Amino acid sequence: MKQRIVVVGGLAAGPSAASKAKRVNPNAEVLLLEQGEYISYGICEIPYFIGGAIQDPSLLVPYSPERLRQVKGVEVKTGHRVDEIQATKKKVIARDLEREKDVEFQYDKLILATGSRVRTLGLEGEDSRNVFHVKSLEDGYGIRRFIEQEKPRRAVVIGGGYVGMEMCEALSSAGLEVTLLHRAELPMSRLEQSARTAVVDALGRNRIRFQPRQRVRSFEGDGAGKVTALVTTQGRYPADVVILALGVEPRNDLARTARLSVGKFGGLTTNPKQETNVDGIYAAGDCCEVKNIVNNKWMYVPLATYASRQGWVAGENAAGGRATFAGAIRALGVKIFDIEVAHVGLSSKEAEDSGIIPVIEEISGNSRVSYYPGNSTIGIILVADKTTGRLLGANVYGGDGAVLRANTLAAAIQHKLTLEEVAKLDLIYAPPFAPLWDPVLTAARTTAKKMAGRSR
Amino acid sequence: MKQRIVVVGGLAAGPSAASKAKRVNPNAEVLLLEQGEYISYGICEIPYFIGGAIQDPSLLVPYSPERLRQVKGVEVKTGHRVDEIQATKKKVIARDLEREKDVEFQYDKLILATGSRVRTLGLEGEDSRNVFHVKSLEDGYGIRRFIEQEKPRRAVVIGGGYVGMEMCEALSSAGLEVTLLHRAELPMSRLEQSARTAVVDALGRNRIRFQPRQRVRSFEGDGAGKVTALVTTQGRYPADVVILALGVEPRNDLARTARLSVGKFGGLTTNPKQETNVDGIYAAGDCCEVKNIVNNKWMYVPLATYASRQGWVAGENAAGGRATFAGAIRALGVKIFDIEVAHVGLSSKEAEDSGIIPVIEEISGNSRVSYYPGNSTIGIILVADKTTGRLLGANVYGGDGAVLRANTLAAAIQHKLTLEEVAKLDLIYAPPFAPLWDPVLTAARTTAKKMAGRSR
Repeated sequence: MKQRIVVVGGLAAGPSAASKAKRVNPNAEVLLLEQGEYISYGICEIPYFIGGAIQDPSLLVPYSPERLRQVKGVEVKTGHRVDEIQATKKKVIARDLEREKDVEFQYDKLILATGSRVRTLGLEGEDSRNVFHVKSLEDGYGIRRFIEQEKPRRAVVIGGGYVGMEMCEALSSAGLEVTLLHRAELPMSRLEQSARTAVVDALGRNRIRFQPRQRVRSFEGDGAGKVTALVTTQGRYPADVVILALGVEPRNDLARTARLSVGKFGGLTTNPKQETNVDGIYAAGDCCEVKNIVNNKWMYVPLATYASRQGWVAGENAAGGRATFAGAIRALGVKIFDIEVAHVGLSSKEAEDSGIIPVIEEISGNSRVSYYPGNSTIGIILVADKTTGRLLGANVYGGDGAVLRANTLAAAIQHKLTLEEVAKLDLIYAPPFAPLWDPVLTAARTTAKKMAGRSR
Repeated sequence: MKQRIVVVGGLAAGPSAASKAKRVNPNAEVLLLEQGEYISYGICEIPYFIGGAIQDPSLLVPYSPERLRQVKGVEVKTGHRVDEIQATKKKVIARDLEREKDVEFQYDKLILATGSRVRTLGLEGEDSRNVFHVKSLEDGYGIRRFIEQEKPRRAVVIGGGYVGMEMCEALSSAGLEVTLLHRAELPMSRLEQSARTAVVDALGRNRIRFQPRQRVRSFEGDGAGKVTALVTTQGRYPADVVILALGVEPRNDLARTARLSVGKFGGLTTNPKQETNVDGIYAAGDCCEVKNIVNNKWMYVPLATYASRQGWVAGENAAGGRATFAGAIRALGVKIFDIEVAHVGLSSKEAEDSGIIPVIEEISGNSRVSYYPGNSTIGIILVADKTTGRLLGANVYGGDGAVLRANTLAAAIQHKLTLEEVAKLDLIYAPPFAPLWDPVLTAARTTAKKMAGRSR
């Protein structure tokens, strides 16, 4: 009998798992169940679609259900919400939302890729038609349509994380006046202080009104389904459109029906084969936590790259192959108007929380030879282990190449290089691309000296 | 008595060594002898000065002799050509070129940083006043002055290596019609075939007449000190100005007076402390060969980064410290008009010559999300060891970020990562900076599959 692999969730990890499973075992029947209308779309691109950098919405959906079937051989059922796993019987109960009836599907292997859900404020008015999350393709279309049709002037973005930053730029590009409300003193909580200050500066230079220390108390409405202002602990902010960028959390209601283990962040915790604690059930993507391979602790980092990799691994293993996802260092980058901001590895606080005595040092360097046209300033903050000298984390922010430079540091972090080793990396010098000593090298050398107790 | 450290050569390695020695042992007397007029200048920037990207010539000279004395405490004598080392007596004999007399200097430690000299064709007319090398600040000033004063229309560049490429762009930017004569079928001999073809395409797009398979037979002159044309095995090329970009070779006449060991490329071969085979004599910079840490063979790669690092190590050790320069992987990058070209690590030929069975694979990827504005194509060619799976070398060429991506591969090569490990690097994904799978990752995965004998 053919092996039957059922995948629940059609966004990033799900299609990745399903395609891989079918490739590894072409004789398997692979079924993908998705409750929504679309599959395999790019959430990460939505801010750029809203801001107008990306015009064609069809580009956001690389695979239609039909195409996934044709190209990858994966059977797809959209409009199917899986409500229950009966692990002992190896079947799932799904709701066919169109026909409004329950359907059962048998599986030999089940892969959960149920993703994440947005965090909410839990306030009245939050579901008004000019209040949007940035989570789904529908959100993206909705925001863009609202802007085109109702021509809002003032936007308020709530939440100063990565998506909040991208939305500030997107809405500003779309011609709106943007206010950013953030709960803390500085945005982007995991960055080090100087990088966070650089972000505030970039926002200010680009006429985003950054409002720190804000807790939203209530929404004021027009009585006709639209919010007109936000009231916070600090004041009142008129708004024609509101964007909630509060982050996401794992969506694991289904997993709970089969008593799968969840971690402290509410995500499924699997082994490196992406196996859950229940036989025959794998999990991948935003519903999972990720092992941080720098401090060996679980973290919740819902990124597309991890979702795809976990998806591959779950798919390959479900189909009888052997693959592992050892974890990640956390590698993030964001463009905030004229600056690039990257964060790889541990923050100083995470290092401390892991029982490590960190050495933290920051430098400012040039992206090119200082007098070569287009040179810009790059800030680098390194976090290292005082005991071992090992590089643990880095913030890289500023001009051109900040993000790609962070990748070199990411490789160094992942492979446990010490500061001395990073300082001795053989990196390219050429005036259009880097100064004689790339700031990556200068940062490592300076931090190594600080660690050794020497002055610069 | 004070320790006396004498450094011969004032370009890159010399000032680096002298400054470091003085910093490590502030009580030492550190003397730098340079035969020319200038010290511590940037050869690498000269093409950009000629092309006009860098306007102010004073920027090319970071340290004047006075400033090196004041800031670093190094005594400097320019116009002093050292002609002989008397190693048993620990002294050098220098010619004071201004006063036209010999002077002796005692040393406790001697550091040779005598640099390199240009290769020549050995043809009559090569010293004409419109024929230039690109080796010294004087050359740079001379070319720029010649262009400004005599307004040449047609330039011929001889030699299709890195400097030849930079000079094609520089002269083209300065408004000249440029012909590039190269001995082989394709320029940039150490790159793999596709990268070399991409270079030819870039030259063609930018109206550089690339003429392959050329051997220069003779110069035609106007009888008044200027060359008017070049005659090669293939034809006759009229020229108002000629640039010789034939590469350089170690300058070791002085070292031979003390019977220092030289390697197969004519460069001094030192241990990792930069000690030569003669007690008390160190060497650093372009006069040295460099240990290639990928295949553990000597190579001759006269780069500013290696010169500085060797200079530091020689200076520190001469002053009683302990430092080592283990070697380099060879990391080079060049901008050729609209493309970036980078080469890190071994070429496939070098791998073969080292007794390694190489796997070579190439991919073409996007620099950003494909539909994000500014996306460009990047080609990556990887060379790996078929037996161990280890990454040995890479060519990265094309659009934005090719060079900085090569740096991540450089770190991987230096730290002996396998293709599988490179494919699992946690690199940043964000639409403005990279596609979901950075081409670096795709290249590694594709090459790993090829090695495993699987199709893509």
